[in-house]
Amino acid sequence: MFSQRILDIDMSEVKRVVSLIKGGNVISFAGGVPSKELFPLKELREAFLEVGEIADVFQYGSTLGFEGLREELLKHLKESQEIHAKLEEIMITHGSQQGIDIIGRVLVDPGDIIVVEAPTYFVALNTFQVYEARFLQVGLDEEGLKTEELESLLRKGEKIKLVYTIPTFQNPSGVTMGEERRKHLVELAEDFDFIIVEDNPYGELRYSGSPVKAIKHFDKSGRVINLGTFSKIFVPGFRLAWLIASEELMEKLEVGKLTTDVCSNTVGQYVTWAFMRKGLLKKHIQRLIEFYRPKRDAMLEALDEFMPENVSWTKPDGGMFIWLTIDDNVDTKEMLEDAVKRGVAYVPGKVFYTLRGGENQMRLNFTFESVERIREGVKILAKLISIS
Amino acid sequence: MFSQRILDIDMSEVKRVVSLIKGGNVISFAGGVPSKELFPLKELREAFLEVGEIADVFQYGSTLGFEGLREELLKHLKESQEIHAKLEEIMITHGSQQGIDIIGRVLVDPGDIIVVEAPTYFVALNTFQVYEARFLQVGLDEEGLKTEELESLLRKGEKIKLVYTIPTFQNPSGVTMGEERRKHLVELAEDFDFIIVEDNPYGELRYSGSPVKAIKHFDKSGRVINLGTFSKIFVPGFRLAWLIASEELMEKLEVGKLTTDVCSNTVGQYVTWAFMRKGLLKKHIQRLIEFYRPKRDAMLEALDEFMPENVSWTKPDGGMFIWLTIDDNVDTKEMLEDAVKRGVAYVPGKVFYTLRGGENQMRLNFTFESVERIREGVKILAKLISIS
Repeated sequence: MFSQRILDIDMSEVKRVVSLIKGGNVISFAGGVPSKELFPLKELREAFLEVGEIADVFQYGSTLGFEGLREELLKHLKESQEIHAKLEEIMITHGSQQGIDIIGRVLVDPGDIIVVEAPTYFVALNTFQVYEARFLQVGLDEEGLKTEELESLLRKGEKIKLVYTIPTFQNPSGVTMGEERRKHLVELAEDFDFIIVEDNPYGELRYSGSPVKAIKHFDKSGRVINLGTFSKIFVPGFRLAWLIASEELMEKLEVGKLTTDVCSNTVGQYVTWAFMRKGLLKKHIQRLIEFYRPKRDAMLEALDEFMPENVSWTKPDGGMFIWLTIDDNVDTKEMLEDAVKRGVAYVPGKVFYTLRGGENQMRLNFTFESVERIREGVKILAKLISIS
Repeated sequence: MFSQRILDIDMSEVKRVVSLIKGGNVISFAGGVPSKELFPLKELREAFLEVGEIADVFQYGSTLGFEGLREELLKHLKESQEIHAKLEEIMITHGSQQGIDIIGRVLVDPGDIIVVEAPTYFVALNTFQVYEARFLQVGLDEEGLKTEELESLLRKGEKIKLVYTIPTFQNPSGVTMGEERRKHLVELAEDFDFIIVEDNPYGELRYSGSPVKAIKHFDKSGRVINLGTFSKIFVPGFRLAWLIASEELMEKLEVGKLTTDVCSNTVGQYVTWAFMRKGLLKKHIQRLIEFYRPKRDAMLEALDEFMPENVSWTKPDGGMFIWLTIDDNVDTKEMLEDAVKRGVAYVPGKVFYTLRGGENQMRLNFTFESVERIREGVKILAKLISIS
């Protein structure tokens, strides 16, 4: 009865993780969900009341999205990431997830090769799988995607359709691609004619270090598609995100959006616009940074204090995740059940790889729990690793 | 650069229609958009203020959707369409369009055959095309889809994956499938093992005649997927709709939704729930009916009064559209340019067919314009047809 493409998507491990964690008072390092205690409820109400008298707010909108919001976003992205784009080059989507889906729909033929980071955000993999892509993995280090490794793949004659990267505070690793690598990646895209999908949900959540320019900033030939989202810097409840691409690509991406859900919800777009035009988004991001920074610090400190010698981890300047590696023959998938019994949860590394890898790794989220519970959770985890 | 599936979607005619109509003071019978003057702005504001204090309203929601809203919907659908379903059998989507997309994703392999009504809603065709379906057309009459015609196709050995039907106040024809045909269709689905997609955006907008039971009502073996939407009976601006399917199907449809956009916007779901639980949806639908009925009547009367002998049209009991056929060798696609110059617009019949047909037909929407402009527009159109 079911299509081959949906049968090929294996959600069993993710479902297992979710059902293990559900219920109980587990200290969760598993999620990637923003803290709801920081949602700007008062400002949201004011924004709604400002626009709620306009009937158009509740009508269908254009497929690319509400112009007012797209204009505000372009101003914001110019300032924060040095992205220079025109109104015709930005589309509002329902989550970055939908951006990925539309890109797959519009660009990927069955068998086309997509290069992903190893490890990477697994739901993106599932979505590209819908379009029957094949995957190649390229490794990461503290400077992000190893573009040298990608170059040698390309020089060997591997024909690549697109590279999917989360260059800043990567999910799950937390690492950030350096500027030289960003330029190198864009050069490779020009030389070997592929598209770069730059997925940047966390880039503005920076707790230390200096801002980086978007990969899109270095794009001169329209080969970079930039994805961003309000879910991590405002609220997820409107499911609003955006996609920036050249006009040539956008013409077809718009058809992709039309066949998906016609247009994004207008109400959310107007409310978000009303919030942004008062300059509240920048202030809100600053609050988030002040709120998340001590949590990151607490997790890094606790890891330092409690973890045994054979454990290493990334030291991200921002985002939501720390990536932990156990230099030993342990299976973090198996260990999860025990961890939950002891009161702490994480996501096993395996799910972030398309092929092999990650058995001895895990992703730790530090934005959800309190500083105290972060410390407590890391302590439990360290003890469990010590005896495993 | 682009995928074959997106290159195969031809939007040129739709774009031509849109650009012809844009600007100017054309009397538009082309759209299918609800009248924004009836949006319940005051009640929407109240509903928002009631739920806007709850942080969860702005958080990610579950993939199936907010339980409160799904419960309210089930109560409503039981009463209005005699659909009996469980909470696990209903999912909130971003527009029925997304329901169609997810169904294609989960059920359609390349080359699978989808039976559609001739004529039918063309964006559904474009969406199924994404999954490389092949189409067969089955004709319509005043009793809806000719299930006898479908049966002979099936008896000839045609292997069909799914039947897509808009059984009530069909788009574009306005006709409604009778109860005997609904039962017959379900029997065929059981005998020949296919899925029925029942798309019902307009069913509750009834201006005359007696209510009909949903096709889903007659489903005993989980072969009917029912789609409905708030866009036509409440507001389109939240992009909220729903999909009802058996639990077996739902398990995979949920994966389809997850890979599309994770979950539907939570804010819209809570506000709609707050509106529904006060019993306001039923009242609002009644207001819409009182508002649209005179418009339908005005169009039917004007058609009677002004159209030449060689023109016939459907007499719908509800919905938004009348389907007009000119018994002559005219091309409504070509005629559109002239019509717009004279101040009236419609959608040419051709776009509603996958294969051949519709050259001498057009779809007329009667919900958007005022009674006076409807009369005026029909008069202009009648004159143009007379001299064509």
